[in-house]
Amino acid sequence: MLRLHDYLPSGNGYKARLLLTQLGIPFQRIEYDILQGETRTPAFLKMNRNGRIPVLEMEDGTFLAESNAIIHHLAEGTPFLPSEPFPRAQVMQWMFFEQYSHEPNIATVRHWLIHLEMNDVQRAVLPQKQEAGHAALQVMEEHLRERAFFVGERYSIADIALYAYTHVAHEGDFDLGSYRAVGAWLERVRGQPSYIPITQG
Amino acid sequence: MLRLHDYLPSGNGYKARLLLTQLGIPFQRIEYDILQGETRTPAFLKMNRNGRIPVLEMEDGTFLAESNAIIHHLAEGTPFLPSEPFPRAQVMQWMFFEQYSHEPNIATVRHWLIHLEMNDVQRAVLPQKQEAGHAALQVMEEHLRERAFFVGERYSIADIALYAYTHVAHEGDFDLGSYRAVGAWLERVRGQPSYIPITQG
Repeated sequence: MLRLHDYLPSGNGYKARLLLTQLGIPFQRIEYDILQGETRTPAFLKMNRNGRIPVLEMEDGTFLAESNAIIHHLAEGTPFLPSEPFPRAQVMQWMFFEQYSHEPNIATVRHWLIHLEMNDVQRAVLPQKQEAGHAALQVMEEHLRERAFFVGERYSIADIALYAYTHVAHEGDFDLGSYRAVGAWLERVRGQPSYIPITQG
Repeated sequence: MLRLHDYLPSGNGYKARLLLTQLGIPFQRIEYDILQGETRTPAFLKMNRNGRIPVLEMEDGTFLAESNAIIHHLAEGTPFLPSEPFPRAQVMQWMFFEQYSHEPNIATVRHWLIHLEMNDVQRAVLPQKQEAGHAALQVMEEHLRERAFFVGERYSIADIALYAYTHVAHEGDFDLGSYRAVGAWLERVRGQPSYIPITQG
């Protein structure tokens, strides 16, 4: 059975949990408390030298890190990833957008606000991250005004990648009220078969 | 002919330039001065709402953004991307590592040091970015100690993605002297057929 090395509040872990569930693939979840350094132990670093969850452990004992690499690998050959070259490239464009322009702002601010006392550097950079987070949401809003899903009018791993931290952005004090197309898209994702919430392990 | 919307000092643009050249695909390069806001004009935002180079313009006039999505798309079906599922996933793991853990630290510090006066927020966050940049280099160093290239003992787009900003990290005051395996790998990349430097448009 596949094993998912995970941390329940993580949107990055949730991407893998949601897709595995929607694909009907059974998996065992192993929880790590990232706040207690449990992903920086020698044992964990053997799975992922970069010290981050999620890590997918294959049946042969090999490991795959990086949430979007994991869901791309799992989605290959399924309806969650297009088979045509250009739509595939567009899925990847949105997944890299998510990890570069969205997650480091929206997920990081959420993490600071719900888990930690902020230090001086974090307090200094907070306004810039809030602004960049809203810029990412605005890019999504404009794209979704004319579309039901991110690529090819069909639910894909591009939607899963972007849904993970957008639907909990309010926990980082991002008010989604003015992003109406994003709000409608969140509802469409929530309505997909075999949907599970981020709180479900 | 393919058109690459680009900015010559950008490592992200360089990834596409290098791969296109190594694939022997002719392309036209269009230069934008990102410091003068040329990627935030209405005309540019029609190509990429996220306002960033590189953007690859296909022969049919469609656009693809995100450097790693571009090189993944171009490499499909070539020796620069493995055909087996798990090595493909490993390539993607390293490409997401690059955009999340490497580029925002190493490339951003380089950009600040060579192009701009730093503002107070940037000065406050600089030590943390320097530390995170060295952590990324250390992850690469440990991986490369036992390997010639990042995946499958063969030059791939994982190497191109990570080479782009590693080989100019010294411009961001990252001293690579103690990363001996990284240094040897940089030489191996530099020795690949049809290699071009980042300064070549």
